[in-house]
Amino acid sequence: MQHAGLFTSPTMEREIALRIATIAGEMRASGLDALLLADNVHLLYTSGRVFAGYTYITSSGEARYFVRRPQGLTGEGVDYIRKPEQIAEMLAARPVRLGLPLDSVLASDARRLALAFPDAEIVDASAMMRRVRSVKTPFEQQLLRQDGVLHAKAYEALPTLYRPGMTDLELQIELERRLRQCGCLGLFRIHGQSMELFMASVLAGDNADVPSPYDFAMGGAGCHASLPVGACGTRLVKGMVVMVDACGNFNGYMTDMTRCFAVGPVEELDPLTRRAHETSVAIHRRLAECATPGTKASTLYEIALAMAHDAGLKALFMGHTQQAGFVGHGVGIEVNEAPVLAPRSNDTLQEGNVIAIEPKFVIPHVGAVGIENTYIVRSHGLECITNAPWHIISLA
Amino acid sequence: MQHAGLFTSPTMEREIALRIATIAGEMRASGLDALLLADNVHLLYTSGRVFAGYTYITSSGEARYFVRRPQGLTGEGVDYIRKPEQIAEMLAARPVRLGLPLDSVLASDARRLALAFPDAEIVDASAMMRRVRSVKTPFEQQLLRQDGVLHAKAYEALPTLYRPGMTDLELQIELERRLRQCGCLGLFRIHGQSMELFMASVLAGDNADVPSPYDFAMGGAGCHASLPVGACGTRLVKGMVVMVDACGNFNGYMTDMTRCFAVGPVEELDPLTRRAHETSVAIHRRLAECATPGTKASTLYEIALAMAHDAGLKALFMGHTQQAGFVGHGVGIEVNEAPVLAPRSNDTLQEGNVIAIEPKFVIPHVGAVGIENTYIVRSHGLECITNAPWHIISLA
Repeated sequence: MQHAGLFTSPTMEREIALRIATIAGEMRASGLDALLLADNVHLLYTSGRVFAGYTYITSSGEARYFVRRPQGLTGEGVDYIRKPEQIAEMLAARPVRLGLPLDSVLASDARRLALAFPDAEIVDASAMMRRVRSVKTPFEQQLLRQDGVLHAKAYEALPTLYRPGMTDLELQIELERRLRQCGCLGLFRIHGQSMELFMASVLAGDNADVPSPYDFAMGGAGCHASLPVGACGTRLVKGMVVMVDACGNFNGYMTDMTRCFAVGPVEELDPLTRRAHETSVAIHRRLAECATPGTKASTLYEIALAMAHDAGLKALFMGHTQQAGFVGHGVGIEVNEAPVLAPRSNDTLQEGNVIAIEPKFVIPHVGAVGIENTYIVRSHGLECITNAPWHIISLA
Repeated sequence: MQHAGLFTSPTMEREIALRIATIAGEMRASGLDALLLADNVHLLYTSGRVFAGYTYITSSGEARYFVRRPQGLTGEGVDYIRKPEQIAEMLAARPVRLGLPLDSVLASDARRLALAFPDAEIVDASAMMRRVRSVKTPFEQQLLRQDGVLHAKAYEALPTLYRPGMTDLELQIELERRLRQCGCLGLFRIHGQSMELFMASVLAGDNADVPSPYDFAMGGAGCHASLPVGACGTRLVKGMVVMVDACGNFNGYMTDMTRCFAVGPVEELDPLTRRAHETSVAIHRRLAECATPGTKASTLYEIALAMAHDAGLKALFMGHTQQAGFVGHGVGIEVNEAPVLAPRSNDTLQEGNVIAIEPKFVIPHVGAVGIENTYIVRSHGLECITNAPWHIISLA
């Protein structure tokens, strides 16, 4: 029976103990007595599963799980409740300073939780949790490595999915299926409310330059104004490049990877397109040399931008009509975690960060080029965990 | 160029004018001077597209659109901003009572918006917007009818997707592809933060009875503890029923439809299974007779429950190990809108409501049976808009 114990395995129980201890240490540094987590991302992070309810952590490192659903979970610290107002009643000691990540809970829910702890000062724990989660444990790193292998396996099948005369959307649908067959869970978790995506962004031709409402590196019109991102039904014709950026969530954690495919022979692509792709590859190689713990995230952006500038490609870097203001971002349970590789980022790389780096260029009428890899920040530098081939691959 | 005008068509412009007028009327009844909408669902509802920014509506019925992205939108009432603090500066008159749907915005964003309007009283407009959106305009009804046709077309292909020896997940992947080929956008919008789903729930055998953390009618273990819903890799064997409940979002609005498929001949299913399915069908026919504007939503639940009881199936109704406490719900841009067909619901049916009714039964070891249809509440009763066949269809 899957649901007997809260923890899915003894390994997960040890892993969760490690995470709770880290959080408790940060809580003591922040002067929090307790922390209340209510959203699926934080419930998953602090229990290893999604459930309906709350994780309550004290600064001494005790974790309690107040569960509404599913029925039948057992284990130390697990109590069933019907409503959040019961939590305070069930605590031996009420918190004075209660942390709540306000960027992860709806305003109505936050209001209700604050009323359930009328004597507590509610402290925004968003930044603290973002910082904790940005440093992946060895166990999380291993999950991300597994993702990278499966993610690459699905992308490597892409040439076999292509048929002449296809649209970008038709190719994307075949890729979605292949990803799912490789074990992709499909769900694409994004922090905040502003960004949405269904599984993948596949861009070709002029669609790569359509300004996006979302904060993704590239846009695309999408197929409907209600989801304006990605493939739009563009017929793939010779000389176009198809940029594929799809969901790498195989186990609750996500790798982020982009690869490019030429419609027709790669050598027949125009020289600007090929040079821009090579510049993206060169940026990856350069950043992999200089990104070590202690490097400022903004420095990585500046290096990438300078290389784009030196190659005469600044006007095409991270978009043309509309340019994105970053070149990379943390990934984990969500696709947009810390650190952020952007000019005004205050983040500094730490060992255990997992970052996606995505220097991309929009080539008018051709599409977008460049690659995105997910890297683990190790003591000696970056470990690439998305190891599909880096060059543009021909679809024919 | 897709992005030239804010409104995607003159029809959409007229439609939005109608919605804004309705909202403004409700605002005057609620004593609100202005309403600020910040989440994608409400931006879509008040503009016909998703953009990054805010819709600001006054009680006199003026709508302004404060846009961060994409670049290039034009039209009356459209202004570009970099940050929400600019909104108040750009208004001729500041609101005294400013509505904000607190169940649709993150606490951190609500806090920031409140600070941007320091002189305004922030009033929770959640219930008001939920009420407005629950009554679909003729245009919205037409979009939902289009969904129903495409949704049924995809389901009708399901027997052609089945191969003996498949798992529930393998069949789901083929259905996902077919839905996408029929134009499904894939994204499944759910109100609130607690529920998640990737495109479809396909349940067979004992998996139909796994208690769910989510507030769906049926559960399923899913393939990973990070997304515990739906197919789990169950091998489909003769005598099982496969329940298919998949995303019907083809245009930003969603129909909700469930159908059942027998592995092997339907006539070889056990009698309890067949009788439970027939009871679901009978509940639909009965509710379609008595659901008219003015009917209490709770009454519909009570009728369904009584019919389940009279059939000796109460212990299997809406789950067995864990039972869901509703038999239907509104649908539209989100899958869980008003009204809610539940025992303690205060909702009353109104003409223009669009509701999914889903009396289902869990049959241990077999799966789940019953159907779900989406109906428009018309003056004379319910119009069914999900017209795939109602009976259990054989997979062989």
